[in-house]
Amino acid sequence: MGYQLSSREYQSQSSVVQVGAVTFGAHNLVVMAGPCTVEDEASLLQTALSVKASGAHVLRGGAFKTRTSHDSFQGFGETALRMLAKAREATGMPVVTEITDAGDLALIGRYAEIIQIGARNMQNTALLKAVGKCKYPVLLKRGFSNTIDEWLAAADYILAGGNEQVLLCERGIRTFENSTRFSLDILSIPVIKSRSHLPIIVDPSHAAGKRDLVGAVSKAAIAAGADGLLIEVDYNPRTAKVDGRQTITTEQFAELMPQLRAVSHAVGRELPSS
Amino acid sequence: MGYQLSSREYQSQSSVVQVGAVTFGAHNLVVMAGPCTVEDEASLLQTALSVKASGAHVLRGGAFKTRTSHDSFQGFGETALRMLAKAREATGMPVVTEITDAGDLALIGRYAEIIQIGARNMQNTALLKAVGKCKYPVLLKRGFSNTIDEWLAAADYILAGGNEQVLLCERGIRTFENSTRFSLDILSIPVIKSRSHLPIIVDPSHAAGKRDLVGAVSKAAIAAGADGLLIEVDYNPRTAKVDGRQTITTEQFAELMPQLRAVSHAVGRELPSS
Amino acid sequence: MGYQLSSREYQSQSSVVQVGAVTFGAHNLVVMAGPCTVEDEASLLQTALSVKASGAHVLRGGAFKTRTSHDSFQGFGETALRMLAKAREATGMPVVTEITDAGDLALIGRYAEIIQIGARNMQNTALLKAVGKCKYPVLLKRGFSNTIDEWLAAADYILAGGNEQVLLCERGIRTFENSTRFSLDILSIPVIKSRSHLPIIVDPSHAAGKRDLVGAVSKAAIAAGADGLLIEVDYNPRTAKVDGRQTITTEQFAELMPQLRAVSHAVGRELPSS
Amino acid sequence: MGYQLSSREYQSQSSVVQVGAVTFGAHNLVVMAGPCTVEDEASLLQTALSVKASGAHVLRGGAFKTRTSHDSFQGFGETALRMLAKAREATGMPVVTEITDAGDLALIGRYAEIIQIGARNMQNTALLKAVGKCKYPVLLKRGFSNTIDEWLAAADYILAGGNEQVLLCERGIRTFENSTRFSLDILSIPVIKSRSHLPIIVDPSHAAGKRDLVGAVSKAAIAAGADGLLIEVDYNPRTAKVDGRQTITTEQFAELMPQLRAVSHAVGRELPSS
Repeated sequence: MGYQLSSREYQSQSSVVQVGAVTFGAHNLVVMAGPCTVEDEASLLQTALSVKASGAHVLRGGAFKTRTSHDSFQGFGETALRMLAKAREATGMPVVTEITDAGDLALIGRYAEIIQIGARNMQNTALLKAVGKCKYPVLLKRGFSNTIDEWLAAADYILAGGNEQVLLCERGIRTFENSTRFSLDILSIPVIKSRSHLPIIVDPSHAAGKRDLVGAVSKAAIAAGADGLLIEVDYNPRTAKVDGRQTITTEQFAELMPQLRAVSHAVGRELPSS
Repeated sequence: MGYQLSSREYQSQSSVVQVGAVTFGAHNLVVMAGPCTVEDEASLLQTALSVKASGAHVLRGGAFKTRTSHDSFQGFGETALRMLAKAREATGMPVVTEITDAGDLALIGRYAEIIQIGARNMQNTALLKAVGKCKYPVLLKRGFSNTIDEWLAAADYILAGGNEQVLLCERGIRTFENSTRFSLDILSIPVIKSRSHLPIIVDPSHAAGKRDLVGAVSKAAIAAGADGLLIEVDYNPRTAKVDGRQTITTEQFAELMPQLRAVSHAVGRELPSS
Repeated sequence: MGYQLSSREYQSQSSVVQVGAVTFGAHNLVVMAGPCTVEDEASLLQTALSVKASGAHVLRGGAFKTRTSHDSFQGFGETALRMLAKAREATGMPVVTEITDAGDLALIGRYAEIIQIGARNMQNTALLKAVGKCKYPVLLKRGFSNTIDEWLAAADYILAGGNEQVLLCERGIRTFENSTRFSLDILSIPVIKSRSHLPIIVDPSHAAGKRDLVGAVSKAAIAAGADGLLIEVDYNPRTAKVDGRQTITTEQFAELMPQLRAVSHAVGRELPSS
Repeated sequence: MGYQLSSREYQSQSSVVQVGAVTFGAHNLVVMAGPCTVEDEASLLQTALSVKASGAHVLRGGAFKTRTSHDSFQGFGETALRMLAKAREATGMPVVTEITDAGDLALIGRYAEIIQIGARNMQNTALLKAVGKCKYPVLLKRGFSNTIDEWLAAADYILAGGNEQVLLCERGIRTFENSTRFSLDILSIPVIKSRSHLPIIVDPSHAAGKRDLVGAVSKAAIAAGADGLLIEVDYNPRTAKVDGRQTITTEQFAELMPQLRAVSHAVGRELPSS
């Protein structure tokens, strides 16, 4: 086997992924924020306007969800995509949303700027090959029990298809510790920075599983060298159908952003206002 | 959430899955054997005739593979399926083979009797839903870092689609131990037997990762109450492109079968000649 | 580093450990049974007589316990040792009991034939060195998160002190699976048999954590090649202060022994009546 | 069971541990630095003077080591303690060193200010009880496969003995990831801060296992709210007998300290010059 396409040996210079006015992998950090799952238009809009005002750069929100149980809520699909598109128009923020079925690629591409591959699909090679042939930037979450080697090999599936716009996203790994939902692998950040030219984003919300832990881990991720964050934020997380416990409020997000900015400066990076 | 469809609370009686003359989940045990990946017709036929002579009931063989790396061999696809069909004709054994893309379902259904979902796709819900609507029995491997709860929830995706012919397959979980490829979760066998009505098969080969360990774990699986085994066997495993180190030879398989028969008797089950 | 003292490279022939009339590591299997913790004399005696009648060869029972919490019951110490000695006199069975403090070695040696090092002390090198200099056989439990390499290295601490009477004991490893207390590493049995000359014992009770799972895993351990079992059995486990949920009753033990004998025969070993 | 002694329910106010002029658990952060193992007097002195000049507050250095293998170097014992005492005189920094045998407590107490319990002894309850009765502050490392619950229960063993000067130290947990030595559990920091009144220190060196990763994780630990760091630093780590690969040089430490100071300020803490 030759060098991996995602490796520094293959490309020594850090990759920069441009999404409209947002630049991933450069001096500036990027914050993506929004609800776990899009549930209604008014809440989404309120959340989007609020996180934008606090300085978020990208709107996140789930339309298609991979859930452990077949009778859990699986997302509102195209209806949710339309709501996301409206919130994008209102705020100017590009949208990142998850794909769970390669057949939905064209549909999602009409509404979103960044396609997310969830942790449970990180080794769904049919899906990786499909997004490898599309023109959209892909945010590739690390599988919760996949090694860094396997994660980079999954990125290579996408790069090999010709799509060079890949963002890696650490979201916590499964360990024996049971007081948090997952264990955020903070060391993966400098390891990825050393071994790969791809930008590395951190999702503190799924790792923590509890909103009170999100702030501390977000600051730690930036201090460790992450290029951005993907945070679950909602106007009223207590009514959310999915993952409400780990979603911070728009007020908490507004308080957190200046702290993230301070840590960014401390490590020589910028977290620009949006 | 009500009872899971795969649970004993939902159905107290053990499910029996019938595939031609082969019965899963009854008094008799079932042994599925064959190469990891189908590579050439002559070897496959030789292997198939040999394992049949030793008492195997089902022929296994990969045509489409989910590989960690995009530039690893991904299987010969339909060409391999045709070879499997020929080996089936020659031996009378039904065939089990893996699906990696829902789009291949009709194709695979023309050549194989049992559709396998690999460990890396256990939470690929789009694929689970697709096989849930088909008429073929499904062998659902446990994801290597999925809990028993998540495994049964994945089975429920298939059952909820109307397909009641589900076989569970334990194939080892990822742990810190590094002298074996995975750690076979032997306790999962009595746990599944207690909690679910579905048959439970054990794949000793992927867990062990080394052929010298396969025999001991096969006997242990039967002693613990498994309904069958899925073993990698090849006429000449040393030339295999994939997983040759964990594949036992047809000679080793011929020696192992009488030992498995003895353990089966000791726990009150039968391992009939095929 | 040269060969490990516990390795087959250092000593190709399997070690045999003799404790009175009981032989570990030979053709015959050994079953050690008794309560987790010794709590009262009458119950202990009743349990001891019953497991002896069912065919147990060694009496197990805790006098000093390593508990996670400082205010959990830590055992009755010398009082419990005296009860064990009485039960030994009544049954003729040698006694295995745990040491938690090197300062207790002479005391325990007066009452017990086999000294047990618990999982939490597997890398307590001061204790390993202490028992390495004593004349008693040592049953060394695997730490619940220690690799097989580390386990053998711990055995080497004892062997290096001059004590060659070491029994290894697999008791389950810590993994993400949460429906059992630990995950029994069944593959460790053939791995140890291949790499080490020391006898390997399996404790199914601590791994399972539930008494209904103990039988299946005991049979699996013998089928996989274990040299013996260490099973928690109590006349009335429901009143036990420690680990009652994983302790089988004397009745269940009486039913299990003939099944273990059948599996032993199936793999070419004997489980003699005591 | 009532409230744990280490819990916020038992004591809502954060504990402050005073060691000479050094205060743990207050506004100021504490950096402990020095070689993994003390090997010769000149190197130790040179390292101590250098880290002191860069702003370290406490000198670390191993005299008694718990090693996986019995024939690995186990430390120079009292000879090393004497060297540490000389370095303390030369620099004014208090000393932290590990205890592996309760019998060494008085000896170590004559030379060191803080007694360290290593990860492998976290559940060595005999040792925990011994240091619980002594007058020295104790740095309690988390066992590499122990939950936060078990860690706090271990701290309770010490507190229950009457010794209230306990420092917790996160040093990485054992997971499936194999590109780093351990996985630093960054979430444990806010979890401990929320659940316990005890100060929390982070050891980035043992988790990372590679010196190039130490800086990023040190900054992350401070950003996440740690009260201090325990870093392996050596004048010439390439000649070290133990853990040289994860030890940063005194030059790297000198470069890192201003960065740590900047992150400290960003999260509202101070990292004072020593």
